[in-house]
Amino acid sequence: MYTLGKKLRFSLFGKSHGPCVGCVLEGVPQGTPIDMESLAHDMALRKPSKGIGTDRVEADKVDVICGIEDGKADGNAIILEIANGNVDDSKYLPFEETPRPGHADLPALLALPKFDIRGGGQFSGRLTAAIVAAGGIARQMLAAKGIVIGSFCRSIGNVEDCDERGIEDAKRSEGFPTRACTPELDAMMSDCIMAARKDMDSVGGVVECIVTGLPIGFGGIWFDSLDAELAHAVFGIPACKGVEFGKGFDITRMRGSESNDAYRMKDGRIVTKTNNMGGVVGGMSDGADLVFRAAFKPTPSIGAKQETVDLKTCEDAELEIKGRHDPCIAPRAASVVEAVTALVLADQMERGL
Amino acid sequence: MYTLGKKLRFSLFGKSHGPCVGCVLEGVPQGTPIDMESLAHDMALRKPSKGIGTDRVEADKVDVICGIEDGKADGNAIILEIANGNVDDSKYLPFEETPRPGHADLPALLALPKFDIRGGGQFSGRLTAAIVAAGGIARQMLAAKGIVIGSFCRSIGNVEDCDERGIEDAKRSEGFPTRACTPELDAMMSDCIMAARKDMDSVGGVVECIVTGLPIGFGGIWFDSLDAELAHAVFGIPACKGVEFGKGFDITRMRGSESNDAYRMKDGRIVTKTNNMGGVVGGMSDGADLVFRAAFKPTPSIGAKQETVDLKTCEDAELEIKGRHDPCIAPRAASVVEAVTALVLADQMERGL
Amino acid sequence: MYTLGKKLRFSLFGKSHGPCVGCVLEGVPQGTPIDMESLAHDMALRKPSKGIGTDRVEADKVDVICGIEDGKADGNAIILEIANGNVDDSKYLPFEETPRPGHADLPALLALPKFDIRGGGQFSGRLTAAIVAAGGIARQMLAAKGIVIGSFCRSIGNVEDCDERGIEDAKRSEGFPTRACTPELDAMMSDCIMAARKDMDSVGGVVECIVTGLPIGFGGIWFDSLDAELAHAVFGIPACKGVEFGKGFDITRMRGSESNDAYRMKDGRIVTKTNNMGGVVGGMSDGADLVFRAAFKPTPSIGAKQETVDLKTCEDAELEIKGRHDPCIAPRAASVVEAVTALVLADQMERGL
Amino acid sequence: MYTLGKKLRFSLFGKSHGPCVGCVLEGVPQGTPIDMESLAHDMALRKPSKGIGTDRVEADKVDVICGIEDGKADGNAIILEIANGNVDDSKYLPFEETPRPGHADLPALLALPKFDIRGGGQFSGRLTAAIVAAGGIARQMLAAKGIVIGSFCRSIGNVEDCDERGIEDAKRSEGFPTRACTPELDAMMSDCIMAARKDMDSVGGVVECIVTGLPIGFGGIWFDSLDAELAHAVFGIPACKGVEFGKGFDITRMRGSESNDAYRMKDGRIVTKTNNMGGVVGGMSDGADLVFRAAFKPTPSIGAKQETVDLKTCEDAELEIKGRHDPCIAPRAASVVEAVTALVLADQMERGL
Repeated sequence: MYTLGKKLRFSLFGKSHGPCVGCVLEGVPQGTPIDMESLAHDMALRKPSKGIGTDRVEADKVDVICGIEDGKADGNAIILEIANGNVDDSKYLPFEETPRPGHADLPALLALPKFDIRGGGQFSGRLTAAIVAAGGIARQMLAAKGIVIGSFCRSIGNVEDCDERGIEDAKRSEGFPTRACTPELDAMMSDCIMAARKDMDSVGGVVECIVTGLPIGFGGIWFDSLDAELAHAVFGIPACKGVEFGKGFDITRMRGSESNDAYRMKDGRIVTKTNNMGGVVGGMSDGADLVFRAAFKPTPSIGAKQETVDLKTCEDAELEIKGRHDPCIAPRAASVVEAVTALVLADQMERGL
Repeated sequence: MYTLGKKLRFSLFGKSHGPCVGCVLEGVPQGTPIDMESLAHDMALRKPSKGIGTDRVEADKVDVICGIEDGKADGNAIILEIANGNVDDSKYLPFEETPRPGHADLPALLALPKFDIRGGGQFSGRLTAAIVAAGGIARQMLAAKGIVIGSFCRSIGNVEDCDERGIEDAKRSEGFPTRACTPELDAMMSDCIMAARKDMDSVGGVVECIVTGLPIGFGGIWFDSLDAELAHAVFGIPACKGVEFGKGFDITRMRGSESNDAYRMKDGRIVTKTNNMGGVVGGMSDGADLVFRAAFKPTPSIGAKQETVDLKTCEDAELEIKGRHDPCIAPRAASVVEAVTALVLADQMERGL
Repeated sequence: MYTLGKKLRFSLFGKSHGPCVGCVLEGVPQGTPIDMESLAHDMALRKPSKGIGTDRVEADKVDVICGIEDGKADGNAIILEIANGNVDDSKYLPFEETPRPGHADLPALLALPKFDIRGGGQFSGRLTAAIVAAGGIARQMLAAKGIVIGSFCRSIGNVEDCDERGIEDAKRSEGFPTRACTPELDAMMSDCIMAARKDMDSVGGVVECIVTGLPIGFGGIWFDSLDAELAHAVFGIPACKGVEFGKGFDITRMRGSESNDAYRMKDGRIVTKTNNMGGVVGGMSDGADLVFRAAFKPTPSIGAKQETVDLKTCEDAELEIKGRHDPCIAPRAASVVEAVTALVLADQMERGL
Repeated sequence: MYTLGKKLRFSLFGKSHGPCVGCVLEGVPQGTPIDMESLAHDMALRKPSKGIGTDRVEADKVDVICGIEDGKADGNAIILEIANGNVDDSKYLPFEETPRPGHADLPALLALPKFDIRGGGQFSGRLTAAIVAAGGIARQMLAAKGIVIGSFCRSIGNVEDCDERGIEDAKRSEGFPTRACTPELDAMMSDCIMAARKDMDSVGGVVECIVTGLPIGFGGIWFDSLDAELAHAVFGIPACKGVEFGKGFDITRMRGSESNDAYRMKDGRIVTKTNNMGGVVGGMSDGADLVFRAAFKPTPSIGAKQETVDLKTCEDAELEIKGRHDPCIAPRAASVVEAVTALVLADQMERGL
């Protein structure tokens, strides 16, 4: 299984074309209330939206195998399973010979003996359904301590949201298919996606995640630090190519006198005057909102003809991918970013970091 | 201890003002040759350079406590210790009351009971000496399999190296104090740092790391993936604010037809026509050079007066930091980036990923 | 989850009165053939035997959730589930107030908040069904390398088998309800159990486990040693009160000149003249059969009236346990001892110890 | 490294003929007072006693590398080192060809490439010095919670202490070289050892360990249980061949009505009328004293001529071991049993089991 966390330990299992995908979540304290309706809300946000998303929609009902009783964690491991709908496996067979550029096909076929490519096997984005389910439980653990997670699309293709955004904007984005913060941006981002779809092409996007309510000192040191563990989890999401906190790469062009977030007292609390650090210094929260961005590449599955190689003949080849795909994964990725963030933060909370 | 890796397991210990910093490295196969001179070369690259670096220089001699005999790993845990020179602890005492902006001081003081702030305690960049020492061993394990790691400064402040660079450029940068790839860039970057120093200020920079020789399929899936584990380790380095692979954040503005790296046969080997992915797809190597960048913020310790709060009186306060600091950490960070990269890759190699 | 193993990692989940018990088995190499009929044979040996066992019999069908395809491990985690039959929970309610002597009731009720005592909760021997299922897979992995595990009842109550026994005897014991090695011993042990049952009482027994085919040097050092890891796993089985290897406690009364197993060459192989060590020296196999014994206490659930306390009134109380129980657990425990032995040995094999 | 524990994590390093043996102890809470004199007392009990022990005596001074400041744990990993005295390595060279019966020599030489047999390498009992040092810290953590550990020799060879013993007896045994509980038993056990020494032979013995002060419910379930984790650690001590709790193997001949420890109220506390279970039911403490015994085999190194094989010629051979050895290891093993018990219990305490 693919695992995350030390005390709140998440493990992912299943394959795209098996009977189900699922996960094990260990370390949820006995008695933790778990609201399955809130979980269903999280699952719904991961579903493709009409128009800009793939036509294929799964039910994504979360089955509890063990660990939850009468709406509460019973202190043992929680196991969740999500049944796989009927997938047309035949479409994947050509990729065994002519791997899709930008996909895991080539390394998987060369590194894993007898790799079962149908549906993308254990690499399939389908497994993120189980991440979102477990993340929903972690989110509820955090909410009970006043820690709230939100996200939105900072950009889609070349459409960028240039305003400063807070947790309310992020929450409002749940109402827009593109996870934009305003109707205007939603329309522009949607147009950008539809234009790519029309060209049988795809675009990328940047998801921004905001966390409020972390106490000063939340997090750890060195390889246990807040940003290191978050980056590990976020890069674990397929298609992620970059992660930055606060001003991120732009901070390198600032001077220290400008980038350092000065401390001030305000209403008896220590606050930062700016938030260039994205709420994290030395691996721990400085009390400001935690802010980071994740870059998602354009969906590699596109309808246009592509250059690849034939693994049997060892010659150059061409490939045309048929089937239904999201022309932009960022809006759906937002809910997965929130889910892994919840898993990491709840683990750190349980570890007492 | 702060640990990294599963099979090749690195653990960091010590404090800035204790007798030594050090590390435990478990899982180095018995009989692995370890060249202590090559290790000393790695240690030297981490030292501050005259002029652009801090005036304080440590000997950084690596003592082998156990695990290496007759120039070879004996199959048991390797323990390395590096003595701490004489640090003037008195300079750190004011920070217990007026924490330095941009530093770990505030969260550390509030989260850790009786945190010993002298020298930065367990947060001190001093501990990266032990990372570089262990990384040197990992680097030698990789080199034996034809895997070579290099790095250079892609930018310092607003001076950016805009050319495409390869492993030879990275290796050549070892000859320049700023870790630039050319004398011209070195001069410009050096000027940028010296200008900040003159203003009692600091600047940031971007380190680019290049790895050659990874076979197609090297790496793992989900949270074991090459990029996720590397990002975890690199964000574990103090002052890192961003990590991106290949085109990184810029890839989000491309279309899939452009960003996908097409495969071609060349001299009987599969190669990619471009390297937008930075050599990693689906968490595994696609055979192209692994390329990633890490953003390092301006050194937070600056001579100029800064706004902070007084933790005793709970009032606004001002702070002036005295003492010697690097006005730009990026050139020294490069060797730490290489070291954690070596540790992650050697661990994945040993795990058979 | 309750786990065992490092590379072949076994985790146990479920409760006696939940929908199922089950387990996760990680680290089974891709392509390992798994014979479900052989697994069913293992499951059958754990079932209670007519007459000497409890009247309650479960179907114990093993459902594969993921990880096995076309009779082979697919390289991902294997998840097995075994449905729970209809349990009459009401019988357990009195034990919430008047804990059963010899059972986990008292510590569980005092240590675990809101412990759900029905069916024994997560302590229930019912979970050993999942241990036997996973152990069956491990057993097949070992058999492929010529390593064979068997066990038998060395004693039941005061009926002791005083002969030296080998793997063939152990295998033959599978044909006898008491897991004795001969019909005569089976009759005597059966009589001993039936006498206890008639008195509404119970008896204990000693299970002896024999492993053949371990190469010299199989095992590890210190806390990784063969005997330490086996003892850990065997003591993890409920009701186990002692474990000894070879001559065990009796070896303390020997002198070194007598207890040391001399080495001799025989047909070109190194053999030991005696087997006082039970096949293990310094934590590793010396090539002789691995032999150890595990003591199982009398079943604590007996029909006779017993002294206990009332946790509500904090006064002395009496207790009469109704319901069906095995008057002797040793014959069924034999298959669980074999299962954990298989799990430990297969893990050590995969770790290359 | 060889590790024990999950939250209080102990790791052992070093070799008999290297510069030092030592250990890492992670998870000692910041601020825990550590009394180095008490530690020295523990170290002294492990030393050989005049007459009945080996003539070779090491200083066994414990050097603190990091983690302890001003007599308190500083919250980071504690590293302890104990220098090795001058060992005459030449005596071990014959064993590379003619392995000592009863020792790890044969499996080590066949399983470990280039095993360095000098001093017994990483198998050497010398490493138990580091176990005792770390155990001393764990013991102090437990004592602060009212949990006290003692041990004594229940038997040496055929001299058995047949009385019921408590913690005071165990503590009194520290005054006798054989760790017997009375002067009479000490004399008899001493005679037994000296008789074996005179014959250039050795004897075994049984160490009994007693722990008082564990609250009801202390411990865990299945493979986390109190007895399973203790057995794992105790079998990790070289020469241990058996472990039993309470009545141990003898309980198998009792009936449940006799073996079950009845509960009674006494002075407002729940107590057991008997202690057949050795204080542990279902893997957790029932509040009675924890009592277990460990069997240690006769020291395999004896002066008499022994039969072995020649690994070079592959023929039968003879061997005479020269040098100084303990004719009975049990009295010294007692302090190691206490040390691993302390490590396991303190880990379970920190884990909140």
